[in-house]
Amino acid sequence: MSSPPISRYPLPELDALPDDIKEKILAVQEKAGFIPNVFLVLAHRPEEFRAFFAYHDALMNKESNLSQADREMIIVATSSDNACHYCVVAHGAVLRIRAKNALIADQIATNYRKADISPREMAMLDFALKVSNDAQSTNDEDFEKLQAHGFTEEDIWDIAAITALFGLSNRMANFTSMRPNDEFYSMGRGV
Amino acid sequence: MSSPPISRYPLPELDALPDDIKEKILAVQEKAGFIPNVFLVLAHRPEEFRAFFAYHDALMNKESNLSQADREMIIVATSSDNACHYCVVAHGAVLRIRAKNALIADQIATNYRKADISPREMAMLDFALKVSNDAQSTNDEDFEKLQAHGFTEEDIWDIAAITALFGLSNRMANFTSMRPNDEFYSMGRGV
Amino acid sequence: MSSPPISRYPLPELDALPDDIKEKILAVQEKAGFIPNVFLVLAHRPEEFRAFFAYHDALMNKESNLSQADREMIIVATSSDNACHYCVVAHGAVLRIRAKNALIADQIATNYRKADISPREMAMLDFALKVSNDAQSTNDEDFEKLQAHGFTEEDIWDIAAITALFGLSNRMANFTSMRPNDEFYSMGRGV
Amino acid sequence: MSSPPISRYPLPELDALPDDIKEKILAVQEKAGFIPNVFLVLAHRPEEFRAFFAYHDALMNKESNLSQADREMIIVATSSDNACHYCVVAHGAVLRIRAKNALIADQIATNYRKADISPREMAMLDFALKVSNDAQSTNDEDFEKLQAHGFTEEDIWDIAAITALFGLSNRMANFTSMRPNDEFYSMGRGV
Amino acid sequence: MSSPPISRYPLPELDALPDDIKEKILAVQEKAGFIPNVFLVLAHRPEEFRAFFAYHDALMNKESNLSQADREMIIVATSSDNACHYCVVAHGAVLRIRAKNALIADQIATNYRKADISPREMAMLDFALKVSNDAQSTNDEDFEKLQAHGFTEEDIWDIAAITALFGLSNRMANFTSMRPNDEFYSMGRGV
Amino acid sequence: MSSPPISRYPLPELDALPDDIKEKILAVQEKAGFIPNVFLVLAHRPEEFRAFFAYHDALMNKESNLSQADREMIIVATSSDNACHYCVVAHGAVLRIRAKNALIADQIATNYRKADISPREMAMLDFALKVSNDAQSTNDEDFEKLQAHGFTEEDIWDIAAITALFGLSNRMANFTSMRPNDEFYSMGRGV
Repeated sequence: MSSPPISRYPLPELDALPDDIKEKILAVQEKAGFIPNVFLVLAHRPEEFRAFFAYHDALMNKESNLSQADREMIIVATSSDNACHYCVVAHGAVLRIRAKNALIADQIATNYRKADISPREMAMLDFALKVSNDAQSTNDEDFEKLQAHGFTEEDIWDIAAITALFGLSNRMANFTSMRPNDEFYSMGRGV
Repeated sequence: MSSPPISRYPLPELDALPDDIKEKILAVQEKAGFIPNVFLVLAHRPEEFRAFFAYHDALMNKESNLSQADREMIIVATSSDNACHYCVVAHGAVLRIRAKNALIADQIATNYRKADISPREMAMLDFALKVSNDAQSTNDEDFEKLQAHGFTEEDIWDIAAITALFGLSNRMANFTSMRPNDEFYSMGRGV
Repeated sequence: MSSPPISRYPLPELDALPDDIKEKILAVQEKAGFIPNVFLVLAHRPEEFRAFFAYHDALMNKESNLSQADREMIIVATSSDNACHYCVVAHGAVLRIRAKNALIADQIATNYRKADISPREMAMLDFALKVSNDAQSTNDEDFEKLQAHGFTEEDIWDIAAITALFGLSNRMANFTSMRPNDEFYSMGRGV
Repeated sequence: MSSPPISRYPLPELDALPDDIKEKILAVQEKAGFIPNVFLVLAHRPEEFRAFFAYHDALMNKESNLSQADREMIIVATSSDNACHYCVVAHGAVLRIRAKNALIADQIATNYRKADISPREMAMLDFALKVSNDAQSTNDEDFEKLQAHGFTEEDIWDIAAITALFGLSNRMANFTSMRPNDEFYSMGRGV
Repeated sequence: MSSPPISRYPLPELDALPDDIKEKILAVQEKAGFIPNVFLVLAHRPEEFRAFFAYHDALMNKESNLSQADREMIIVATSSDNACHYCVVAHGAVLRIRAKNALIADQIATNYRKADISPREMAMLDFALKVSNDAQSTNDEDFEKLQAHGFTEEDIWDIAAITALFGLSNRMANFTSMRPNDEFYSMGRGV
Repeated sequence: MSSPPISRYPLPELDALPDDIKEKILAVQEKAGFIPNVFLVLAHRPEEFRAFFAYHDALMNKESNLSQADREMIIVATSSDNACHYCVVAHGAVLRIRAKNALIADQIATNYRKADISPREMAMLDFALKVSNDAQSTNDEDFEKLQAHGFTEEDIWDIAAITALFGLSNRMANFTSMRPNDEFYSMGRGV
């Protein structure tokens, strides 16, 4: 049986892609063992691909007071609220691995308010959801609540910017009907 | 490290329960290899326990044009919309097993509109979500849409009644902070 | 002129029903002077009928710190929010009688926040509406607010369980287009 | 026991009111047998009182293809959606009388979509609710639907204007906590 | 190129209007330099025209602790939330002039929570929006918040009544597709 | 009087910025006559700045079947729905200039459904708003509606991607309380 398509748009041949994009994709494949579909789907538009991953790397690969698990929690919580298959399934897998916790991704995807997380993490996710759904109402009180949990102004920028970038990603994935790789569903479940 | 509690209410000792309830729980344990937490949490109120499982069995164990996988899909889709940990995780596991499909539960929990399902299943879930969120607006047109996919009036009752019963269950699970057993998270992922 | 049907599903003949159901219905008719339509509509499915009324009786007939009027208020407030004819009209009648108050049902059905009720009753209905619409966000703070008004943890279970059961009932009544008996509209208006 | 106040604002003494307002109020009392509270509550501001009742009379007392019962249905349906005690209870009474139907007001207040009304009345109320909640999206298609039921452009203005005026009234009644007279609750129930 | 119509309803000839309405319109034209379209659109119904402007003048022309700029802010904030072209554009112009501030109208129309306004003005607009969207939940706490900023009970009536009247106006403008005069867009931008 | 800050985060000194960023900013200043605040606010994070503007330029500077005015309409409509001061005011100015239309920006910001736009533009904005608010429900039917107006699959990607990028931008602007330059408010009003 043939699989459903991974995008409603055409997928580029790897060899037809510009060198920098092809190299980036091969490097990911080398590390992960497979090519996450988002790379192929977004490579349909090379300029946008470069900008997206530059933004992604600027937020996800840098040093920050937010741990890698913190950042993945933000992605899973907001992507679930935006009902995005790709991001919930793929970043759920990464979250399980980063947090070394087989249960946390499904808990956060279903209802972070009842998940096994700390009050600091709850405050972080409350703010991320507010930026996602009602950024226009953010105010000093929101910043104060986060600061009471030890977040700095720069940490708060990180929370908001990750939320905003994956809000973009969720919309791109949903309108293209981007499909997560089957591999992600079971990754990190044995940790 | 101790686990978080599985309910904010006290759990009964198995031996202190009325015989019929104890026997039902032991039979489930025998079959599943563990006691699903919902049995212990609801046994806090024996009369309500009996009524809940009588209702459950009347809808879930009977012959119907709705397959076991259809019924589990309805539960996962509506429970996800109601953000219920217990039902999404536990019935997600059952759905993977019933449908012999390792991916379907996460797809439906995240966004059934983008899941690998048939137009018949999509119509079934559209109606279930309408009963869950806006039953007051259901009308002849809804019935006609379902009939066009081969559902009978009795099948439609089944869809609505399963939705209604698990809407009750979702509310009970959420206000008691009912916790799914760890076992459910990984069940059926290798099928 | 013929009346509109009381359900979009067939109604059973009383004599064709299993004895236990027939007896329950005759007993209600004896007491009320007429058969409330919910009994006939749900008797279309005897197993579900038995489970529903077992659940109902477990919550509504037992001893509780919640008075009969309290319980009916919960039903009227949440059923009105769910726009359910049968439950608002039938339980509105019962509320008028239980509370010996000809005005209270219409007040609560229209806007419980402006009704002639005590702060304790207001807190009870606030929680019932939260369980009905947003159970996933219930938390310790909700319990503390209720405890400040003297509600115990068991009372809170009662509020939530009544809300959840009538949420089921509202959905069943709405999708079947269940019609309240004409008698209910004027009952208890002279008290 | 003293009754709750009928407004959070002071009520004028009848004799202290300007003659035209006093006369209007006495005429209503003569006809109804009591003074509907809205007259006393709004008389706190004589200029606004005059404008409100001039608007009211322009829409409610004129000749129109909309019957008196049609107009009252619009008021009850939109006022219920706005959760306004005064208008639901008082105009519910008038609707029972105008329509010579003891059941219709409670049906429309609870859920007009399941009420015993004609397709023409349903279309009228659908449009009234759209003007009340989402006037910004009204378009040619809405007008065409109404015209298919025989409504003229002038009739449609009537539906919208009654909705708009009672939307104003609902907001005034709610922020002043305006209380309906006890008499209204049982009026017209024996018709 | 011909302009789009200013209403979907017929516009009266000025000379065919009753004298009082014609005089009122000519007086406005004299003062403003043009006839604001709302006068022509509402003159389609002379009785309703008179009532509307009587209500308008009672609230907008009287002495009040609310400045003219305060009142226009309420109109712009609530009309923007109701997505009403006429009121946002026309009253935005008046607000710029009354407040002698070229930026304030666009700020309030887009997001009053981020506008250059005082805490007193923010509290006033928070209450106006609550009356507009959720008057049924207004309570003592809302009044106390406003009183803490120096608003009296009569000032609060003014805020609510202006909101309610322009809620009516927004609905009339939207269903008639009332078009603002081109002149309003640029008025007051050089102050 | 000092102006309010243009961001709640520190603004970099132009001379302290990396050369590529400084040059980009000076080039914009040269062209516009002033530095649009978004450049200074986002330059607080140089890596993210580069990625954002690379994405922006990839979508806004390329050849496309969407005219420059089309793209600005999408930005104004979705940014208004997200209540973003910076984007509504700044891109409103650009839209007036691109469309050579002094009225269009305020019309679209207030209610695009009643604006002076073509059916093709209306369909484009309907889809943009759906991607912004409910991307998870986009489906074949949405694509077919757009294709009926002559949009290709690539055009649809452009609509969605512009919406997604400015959704990111709206969230960044709102949580930083980014302030539009005063110059934007009056630009293009004389065209």
